[in-house]
Amino acid sequence: MLEWLAAFGGTASGGVTRLLYSDTWIQAQQALKKVMQAKGLDVRFDEVGNLFGRRIGVEEPESVILTGSHIDTVKDGGEFDGAYGIVASLMAVQRLYEQYGPPKRTIDIVSLAEEEGSRFPLTFWGSGWITGRYNLDQAEHIYDKDGISLKEAMEGAGFGAKPMPIERKKPKAFVEVHVEQGIVLERKKKSIGIVSHIVGQRRYTVHFKGESNHAGTTPMSMRKDAMRLMAEWTVFLLTEAELLDESLVATVGKVTAKPNMPNVIAGEVECSLDARHYDSSVLDRFEKKIEEFETHVKTRGMTMSTQRWMSIEPVKLDQAMMKSAARQAKHLGLSYETLISGAGHDSQVFGGYCPTMLLFVPSRHGISHSPDEWTEPDDLEKGIQMLMGELYTLAYV
Amino acid sequence: MLEWLAAFGGTASGGVTRLLYSDTWIQAQQALKKVMQAKGLDVRFDEVGNLFGRRIGVEEPESVILTGSHIDTVKDGGEFDGAYGIVASLMAVQRLYEQYGPPKRTIDIVSLAEEEGSRFPLTFWGSGWITGRYNLDQAEHIYDKDGISLKEAMEGAGFGAKPMPIERKKPKAFVEVHVEQGIVLERKKKSIGIVSHIVGQRRYTVHFKGESNHAGTTPMSMRKDAMRLMAEWTVFLLTEAELLDESLVATVGKVTAKPNMPNVIAGEVECSLDARHYDSSVLDRFEKKIEEFETHVKTRGMTMSTQRWMSIEPVKLDQAMMKSAARQAKHLGLSYETLISGAGHDSQVFGGYCPTMLLFVPSRHGISHSPDEWTEPDDLEKGIQMLMGELYTLAYV
Repeated sequence: MLEWLAAFGGTASGGVTRLLYSDTWIQAQQALKKVMQAKGLDVRFDEVGNLFGRRIGVEEPESVILTGSHIDTVKDGGEFDGAYGIVASLMAVQRLYEQYGPPKRTIDIVSLAEEEGSRFPLTFWGSGWITGRYNLDQAEHIYDKDGISLKEAMEGAGFGAKPMPIERKKPKAFVEVHVEQGIVLERKKKSIGIVSHIVGQRRYTVHFKGESNHAGTTPMSMRKDAMRLMAEWTVFLLTEAELLDESLVATVGKVTAKPNMPNVIAGEVECSLDARHYDSSVLDRFEKKIEEFETHVKTRGMTMSTQRWMSIEPVKLDQAMMKSAARQAKHLGLSYETLISGAGHDSQVFGGYCPTMLLFVPSRHGISHSPDEWTEPDDLEKGIQMLMGELYTLAYV
Repeated sequence: MLEWLAAFGGTASGGVTRLLYSDTWIQAQQALKKVMQAKGLDVRFDEVGNLFGRRIGVEEPESVILTGSHIDTVKDGGEFDGAYGIVASLMAVQRLYEQYGPPKRTIDIVSLAEEEGSRFPLTFWGSGWITGRYNLDQAEHIYDKDGISLKEAMEGAGFGAKPMPIERKKPKAFVEVHVEQGIVLERKKKSIGIVSHIVGQRRYTVHFKGESNHAGTTPMSMRKDAMRLMAEWTVFLLTEAELLDESLVATVGKVTAKPNMPNVIAGEVECSLDARHYDSSVLDRFEKKIEEFETHVKTRGMTMSTQRWMSIEPVKLDQAMMKSAARQAKHLGLSYETLISGAGHDSQVFGGYCPTMLLFVPSRHGISHSPDEWTEPDDLEKGIQMLMGELYTLAYV
């Protein structure tokens, strides 16, 4: 089923490109709609193109358990990220129905319109719409690289123009399974990750300014070497990150030097800093360390500036649901690990809205957002079993 | 006269581009030839296009004092680098003649064909030819970026094909004045630099290999971060350079990271290292420090490779001539500083061949190889006075 879904937007390199409201995105949602209908689910799209397949509860139809993930991908992404969560929900709900009949409470399977932010400079459009974080007005002022607004693109795909009447009633719970996109489960040889937090993210652009000079004729004592300053800053900050908290991750992934010549002292260096932790106060303390270094720089006759251009708050997921997941894993005889998600997920939007559970299955070598994304079928199956158990607890008991 | 010469190859940005054997190069050499003839000098080109203007000595015509610098420039270079040395020699020789008549010993003013290595991957073609470092055979196998061989280009400019009969007799001395291309004279407020050594240069390309991974989902303890490794190496090596010897300069000027994205741990980083000192043994000891770090890297599960792609030996200039220059500066009431040249010069080729003197005048802000290259006329004049004094000592006394 994952392979079938990956064909909508399949790329030459074996990956998938399914950007929000593109033709391949529309085809994938329409194909999923047919699958849901064939399984006897009540199917509907909401105003922004989130697709729901509903199995009505026979005792408490108003109580809705929401489960699913996102249908969009990054450019030339893999076939598991997002899609696996939708497929797992479809299979779990179908198996439960075949085994136990209709649920007591309603289950909504959702194929969320957008999570990745690959087409528009905005992430979580699907879950953000459901939870009320975004509204239609915002869609007018966000553009893709071709200058098409989110609103235009949405209307082009047949959504948005005429809001359909739909109650925005809070679900009793949201449950998502997803590939880990990390190496922890693989390294620790565990089958299931139970996510306790989704990290907060802060991203910075850092600019170091020294003086460009001849590499041969400028004595070390007369230099204002921006490359050296950047190196000192990198060593200092990453070491501080390790000392501050073992769950803090900090990355300097991008660097550009000017004039970037072997025989010229770099006058300017710009680099990125990405810091993530599940506790904002740790990110605050880390930010203090950046300021500490800035003070130190002034004493050396150079300047640096740090611009924070992204700040996403961390989310703590529902503890009762985590405990339930741990019981479920033990019951099924599956090894598990409590994890912090270092990547963003729809669950972080739902996490602030309703009780939310996020489960991971291993990612081979931690690779994601790549045609090389892979999870063994056995591991995919274990994720579905976990989801079945949880949906049973939430909707059948 | 410098402005006049800069017009041959003048660029839109106010700089000069005069690559070896180009039309503008030919025009500049021919124009200089006419100036030399107008001053009553015996003029000739050698096989490779070095231009000589001779003032015959009346007592020891066989003893030749050679003075001058190079006529070629880098792309969009300045009007002082090289050209000033030729102009200064012309003016000094002319003034001496006007004041004292013909010299006892012969003075040859030379406008050297090539020093910069801007067109062909070869430097010091002019001085290298005179001193026997290069021969015509080598010219066949060196190509510019358009695939034209040095031999073809030389023949196209009217040289090389028919070696003219010229005795390659060692001059008694070579004297060159040049702009410093550094900030030492300016910072120390000195008029004249007396060069004691021209540094040896070693250049390396250094490659760090770690593992590219997700910046959010990879704990610090599981990372193989090539950017961090590069930063640690840079801090370590530049600190070691300072500790090793105050005259050692080391520069990491160029860096490239892969995939160079803010939210991905860099799997590979490549950077440059440029190290210079006037004593080879110091450069050897510095190289040992690189090896020390390589050992350290292995213990961290990453790899690095260091490729040395340039190695130029240092040159010590003539001490008696340095002392003479110091006396001359005192005599003229000019402030001076004994300097090590961190840049390469024709004097380093002559330095291993005959007694050689290299004098510097200040460069504003140390800028060279740029249209912004500038030396105050007063400072240019002081350089000419020093040269007059030295040529008087060498050729008239």
